[in-house]
Amino acid sequence: MSVWRQAPRTEGMNPSIIREILKLTERPGVHSLAGGLPSPDAFPIPEIREATERVLAGAPREALQYASSEGYGPLREWIAEHRTALGHPVDPDQVLITTGSQQGLDLVGKILIDTGTRVGVETPTYLGALQAFTPFGPEYVSLPSDDDGIDPRALLKIGDAPSFAYVIPNFQNPSGWLMPDGRRADLVSVARAIGMPLVEDDPYGEIWFDRPPPASLASRWPEGVLALGSFSKVLTPGFRVGYVIAPPELFPKLLQAKQAADLHTPTFTQRIVFEVLRDGLLDHHLPAVRERYARGRDAMEAALTAHMPEGSHWHRPDGGMFFWVRLPEGFDAMHLLGRAVDFGVAFVPGEAFYAGEPDRRTLRLSFVTLPPETIAEAVALLGQVIRDDG
Amino acid sequence: MSVWRQAPRTEGMNPSIIREILKLTERPGVHSLAGGLPSPDAFPIPEIREATERVLAGAPREALQYASSEGYGPLREWIAEHRTALGHPVDPDQVLITTGSQQGLDLVGKILIDTGTRVGVETPTYLGALQAFTPFGPEYVSLPSDDDGIDPRALLKIGDAPSFAYVIPNFQNPSGWLMPDGRRADLVSVARAIGMPLVEDDPYGEIWFDRPPPASLASRWPEGVLALGSFSKVLTPGFRVGYVIAPPELFPKLLQAKQAADLHTPTFTQRIVFEVLRDGLLDHHLPAVRERYARGRDAMEAALTAHMPEGSHWHRPDGGMFFWVRLPEGFDAMHLLGRAVDFGVAFVPGEAFYAGEPDRRTLRLSFVTLPPETIAEAVALLGQVIRDDG
Repeated sequence: MSVWRQAPRTEGMNPSIIREILKLTERPGVHSLAGGLPSPDAFPIPEIREATERVLAGAPREALQYASSEGYGPLREWIAEHRTALGHPVDPDQVLITTGSQQGLDLVGKILIDTGTRVGVETPTYLGALQAFTPFGPEYVSLPSDDDGIDPRALLKIGDAPSFAYVIPNFQNPSGWLMPDGRRADLVSVARAIGMPLVEDDPYGEIWFDRPPPASLASRWPEGVLALGSFSKVLTPGFRVGYVIAPPELFPKLLQAKQAADLHTPTFTQRIVFEVLRDGLLDHHLPAVRERYARGRDAMEAALTAHMPEGSHWHRPDGGMFFWVRLPEGFDAMHLLGRAVDFGVAFVPGEAFYAGEPDRRTLRLSFVTLPPETIAEAVALLGQVIRDDG
Repeated sequence: MSVWRQAPRTEGMNPSIIREILKLTERPGVHSLAGGLPSPDAFPIPEIREATERVLAGAPREALQYASSEGYGPLREWIAEHRTALGHPVDPDQVLITTGSQQGLDLVGKILIDTGTRVGVETPTYLGALQAFTPFGPEYVSLPSDDDGIDPRALLKIGDAPSFAYVIPNFQNPSGWLMPDGRRADLVSVARAIGMPLVEDDPYGEIWFDRPPPASLASRWPEGVLALGSFSKVLTPGFRVGYVIAPPELFPKLLQAKQAADLHTPTFTQRIVFEVLRDGLLDHHLPAVRERYARGRDAMEAALTAHMPEGSHWHRPDGGMFFWVRLPEGFDAMHLLGRAVDFGVAFVPGEAFYAGEPDRRTLRLSFVTLPPETIAEAVALLGQVIRDDG
């Protein structure tokens, strides 16, 4: 008999299906459309090397020492200015640097969720948010959503408003949806009316292909929206540098939760990120990333059109990293996965992304990890697996 | 009225007194004996620059990409071998890399503590552990302790055993205590008998001055001890690389908690730490760190003898970073702090380190941040403030 008594909350913690799938995809010869990994071809490696050398030559003692839980001052200022320029006036004192935006989700859970707290989520929603929130005991409210995101009219019919709603308006993971301007205005208007604040997650907003997304939810309701951001998709995930922009009333408890979680995000990587940003790297780096990922999107769209069975549905994403495909009636994506991997192609079954009843005909396909020609090959393989199953 | 409803657990989350004090000590001219900051003079900066260049030249795409939640394989193997060589047989599969050992404490709280879980702690104990555990709702049991650590005989008299006990056997923070070999054997024997597993935190074990500490608690009871370690004190805190060594039955839930907390610790810094370690840096770096800190300890001991009022008590630490001083009856360390800072010297009042009733006559003094000559000056100033108050 074990001497350890684990907390009841661990019963709700389960291995991530994506994690298990990523292990499968490490098999040699498997083309993975599963992971949300940015292409390493898009990492600005020479610029990062230069920035790292500057940090270690210029301020090694500071870069390697303990530092404040809030984060590196100049990086907080850069983020505040950047957000302000995008129409959301932010003071550096509202910016908390986090160890990736996944940590932002954990801290949000810690300060906003107790057992039974009702949390509204999109249908489908981001699996990582469910994993971060679930240990704190929420009761999820899976909000009716369409290709434009949460339907605000449906919010008026759900009875008691959730304590807050978690929303990814830009090129959502997993669906690739972009919430249009009018829908954003309506959502904020209804959320204000029913007293339901919003947690706005935005890892993909800078990865647009034709035009920037509409103004953020936070810019429309600064005191009612807590915003999460990240440098993982625009720069590199390996630094694990993200941030939370909090309404001032929430900042003190978020900061204490951050301090208890890991004291602070590594000083060293924060300073490297700042060095890269101050050089204006994003201005000349992002257009290349957008162009690369748009080519991936185009390749995948063509391949889906050629190889998916009749009656399949997808929405062409205008940015981000994912296609969200719904197969015709009778298919089950989880069932398909095993054979797909044997055939040499992997994807993520959509059911992992539902807080409520899943739609088992859905799957998520990433178009940023593989080069365009391999995407075509992988989707062709997937099409064959689906036809054989049908 | 606010639209946000914060979780009840936030009521137990309060600003760290140490954090507030560290702000005070940033005033120019204040000699700080408060923070537990390793001396930046002890950082192996040239070696870190070389290791960083090797990582960025050799495997930039891997070092900057998402990676597994468990941590970087070769670093996990190094830690397992290192622990095994110290008498605690560890398989790499038991090692989870964390974002500093503070994150290890947060993950321990998440999987082991629910509202009302009884958690045994030393008297006094590490403030950062209290901050990590408290949001999960523990009921602390402040275990009777002396200069050798927890008194195992007292454990037999406390009724129901706590769900686990949190212990720092090597040069404890804040007390500097080293638990002797016999006490370790007794503690493990009693803990086994009453079915109380142990969480063994060990940031300072390598910072010994005359001889290495006795064998770890984990080496004496591998399945009943979860061990936390860190590279912050032996290498540099700015990387935020720590680790948990878990009994196999606890590993899966710890890993899931880690994944939800920040996906993984930065790949980049993990690889740099490994590059530094594989060069055998610790073998020639640690003796210099030990010698430096031992000089600080000696300087502080001499200064305390010269300047503390009669009736003060302290224990000469054989390693680590701190003196723990108990002033004569009538003194209140928190009360002294304001005037001390005005005089140009800062410390941490001991009351921050108690889960139960605090001893307000105690204070924690760090001997590693300031050089020896400044330590003498700072303790002399402190002595003057105390005499003026007496």
